Amino acid sequence: MNIVADTMDRGYNYIPAFDTWTLNPEAAYLHFASNETIGGVEFFWLPETGDVPLVADMSSNILSHPIDVSQYGLIYAGAQKNIGPSGITVVIVRDDLIGRADPITPISFDYQVQANDASLYNTPPTFAWYLTGLVFKWLKEQGGPEAMEEINERKAKKLYAAIDKTDFYTNDVAADCRSLMNIPFQLRDKRMDQTFIAEAAEQGLLNLNGWRTVGGMRASIYNAVPEEAVDALVEFMSEFENKYG
Amino acid sequence: MNIVADTMDRGYNYIPAFDTWTLNPEAAYLHFASNETIGGVEFFWLPETGDVPLVADMSSNILSHPIDVSQYGLIYAGAQKNIGPSGITVVIVRDDLIGRADPITPISFDYQVQANDASLYNTPPTFAWYLTGLVFKWLKEQGGPEAMEEINERKAKKLYAAIDKTDFYTNDVAADCRSLMNIPFQLRDKRMDQTFIAEAAEQGLLNLNGWRTVGGMRASIYNAVPEEAVDALVEFMSEFENKYG
Repeated sequence: MNIVADTMDRGYNYIPAFDTWTLNPEAAYLHFASNETIGGVEFFWLPETGDVPLVADMSSNILSHPIDVSQYGLIYAGAQKNIGPSGITVVIVRDDLIGRADPITPISFDYQVQANDASLYNTPPTFAWYLTGLVFKWLKEQGGPEAMEEINERKAKKLYAAIDKTDFYTNDVAADCRSLMNIPFQLRDKRMDQTFIAEAAEQGLLNLNGWRTVGGMRASIYNAVPEEAVDALVEFMSEFENKYG
Repeated sequence: MNIVADTMDRGYNYIPAFDTWTLNPEAAYLHFASNETIGGVEFFWLPETGDVPLVADMSSNILSHPIDVSQYGLIYAGAQKNIGPSGITVVIVRDDLIGRADPITPISFDYQVQANDASLYNTPPTFAWYLTGLVFKWLKEQGGPEAMEEINERKAKKLYAAIDKTDFYTNDVAADCRSLMNIPFQLRDKRMDQTFIAEAAEQGLLNLNGWRTVGGMRASIYNAVPEEAVDALVEFMSEFENKYG
């Protein structure tokens, strides 16, 4: 494994310029996560790797905007963010990349076997599959990924504006890769974090804890989170600052 | 892989006597399925393998009767028969058998990792897990595996009796291993199969097709199938024989 870039130096809050990546032109593939949920970092551009296939973990931003699948060798996405319940994963794989599984690969994970059997080689997670279908129908009714992108951009813009307005709140992610899906933020006085989270919960604003290893707050505003929920959070943040700021 | 017994000679309708099995005393484990759903063959005894751990696929009869887990090295069971929805699997593994995963094992399938993290290393299939919990509660209310065993024995006894009563229906599985969960049966005239299945469906008796490779009929009478459903099938079989027999 060759790590092409590491952003630990600044707490994983940016994406290094592509010309600094230590690429291996002989690599079997280049793997990246198109959105990183803990730090709140999202790719808005694609690595250009020539013949090296791109493999993307899109679990946390698939269907949040249109994508050109022809640019990827393989896309995979656990359903539990924008698709449906946990326990089902979507895989989109380029035809020429299937049929090359290591012989030790469990047969249900051999994409050739699944492709031959229309993804029904084994008993699939039927209920998750069904719910996923309902979400796809809902998504189409909303206008598809194009419409979601507009809504998601509006939601994120409102929340980042609320964070940036004063120094009471901060988000230190580089401006060119601030996630539209996961927006972490910190209070100027982090001893107030639990007060913020508790009072937010009283208003019905839930799950605002930051990831357990980084603390602070995080708003995950996936496709299923309506714009009204973001508006309510922004309103609460303003009230909270007036009270304690 | 060393196959200890093969029953293809009689269409997989029996379990060979244990003293005919070609055991390897050096084997890492002995794997068997405690119930086989296609032929309708079930183990009512345990292979005695000394220090060789028993690994059992109990997908199709777990919780249908009490088991002594201490007799096994590893038990696994896909949920979709007696536990809950497809997409979740229960694994019960002996302490000394964990921590020995091949280094290439995907981390979520490393039982040591899952044991350390109380089966929450990765995001589990939450909804399937929840439904599974409801089934466990229901099962306890029924009286647990002991009560299910009584009910299952009664259900199966009624259905086998209906099959054996005349030569209009047959089930050729050896008497000592007839499954309590999956009961295949054939019509004397197999050209009538589709008529049987269609007329049964009209009575609300569904999913009676045999497995696609073997044809005929099959009644899967898992824990969730009430005794009344078996009574209705037995009644229908009698009527069908009166009409066409």
